[in-house]
Amino acid sequence: MAYDPNNIFARILRGELPCIRLYEDDQTLSFMDIMPQLPGHALVIPKEPAVTIYELSDESMAACLRTAKKVGKALEQAFGFNGTSLFQLNGTEAGQTVPHVHFHVLPGAFLQSKALKGHAAEMADLAELEILAARVRSFL
Amino acid sequence: MAYDPNNIFARILRGELPCIRLYEDDQTLSFMDIMPQLPGHALVIPKEPAVTIYELSDESMAACLRTAKKVGKALEQAFGFNGTSLFQLNGTEAGQTVPHVHFHVLPGAFLQSKALKGHAAEMADLAELEILAARVRSFL
Repeated sequence: MAYDPNNIFARILRGELPCIRLYEDDQTLSFMDIMPQLPGHALVIPKEPAVTIYELSDESMAACLRTAKKVGKALEQAFGFNGTSLFQLNGTEAGQTVPHVHFHVLPGAFLQSKALKGHAAEMADLAELEILAARVRSFL
Repeated sequence: MAYDPNNIFARILRGELPCIRLYEDDQTLSFMDIMPQLPGHALVIPKEPAVTIYELSDESMAACLRTAKKVGKALEQAFGFNGTSLFQLNGTEAGQTVPHVHFHVLPGAFLQSKALKGHAAEMADLAELEILAARVRSFL
């Protein structure tokens, strides 16, 4: 699958679209998922353009996981969980909705969680999301 | 959480318990989940002892993801999917059942899949699993 430079995450990386930022370094960006499946649902993306992990360099992938560790620990502290779930979908057949690699990081459990909402299904209140993000950032 | 050297994955790594092996290198081991949530459910574990990604070295984590890429691509080919899902649970509050870091790799979609079985819930037929594994290994 060819990389579409106008996908929503590419546009966020170029500053053309806003995001509720949690963390950024040379290789990665982390922000709140605006269609959270659970409270505290965050994303980590590489700055390298790639649709799936299969096109992503090992270096960028390692950087994403380092960031996921940082953000995941902050989510645990911010939401009072002793646990975090990661997931990552490759390809539309896996349910990937935005064609730029992204790792999902959620505080607590998500598998079989009764509170779990659909993937990329329902927009959050952005003002509420910003308050949650500020709390997460305070642990980063 | 202290690392228990007698957890089931540590025992598999020491060769004290069998596994249906897919791939192994210096830093990682991949094998079939014997309680698959979907057909083709595979695991990737680091050889480094660590309960969660928060205790795991960045080097071992990067190695796990390199192996997940290899195994994930083989799963896509073996099961005829153009997509793979990864997930990884940290801590019992996230639903982690074996206290040694493990990455789940599944062909196709798992979120909201109607066929998805419970996590670590139901034992597979090991002879059938060995046949699936041989097919995955043929792509590795």
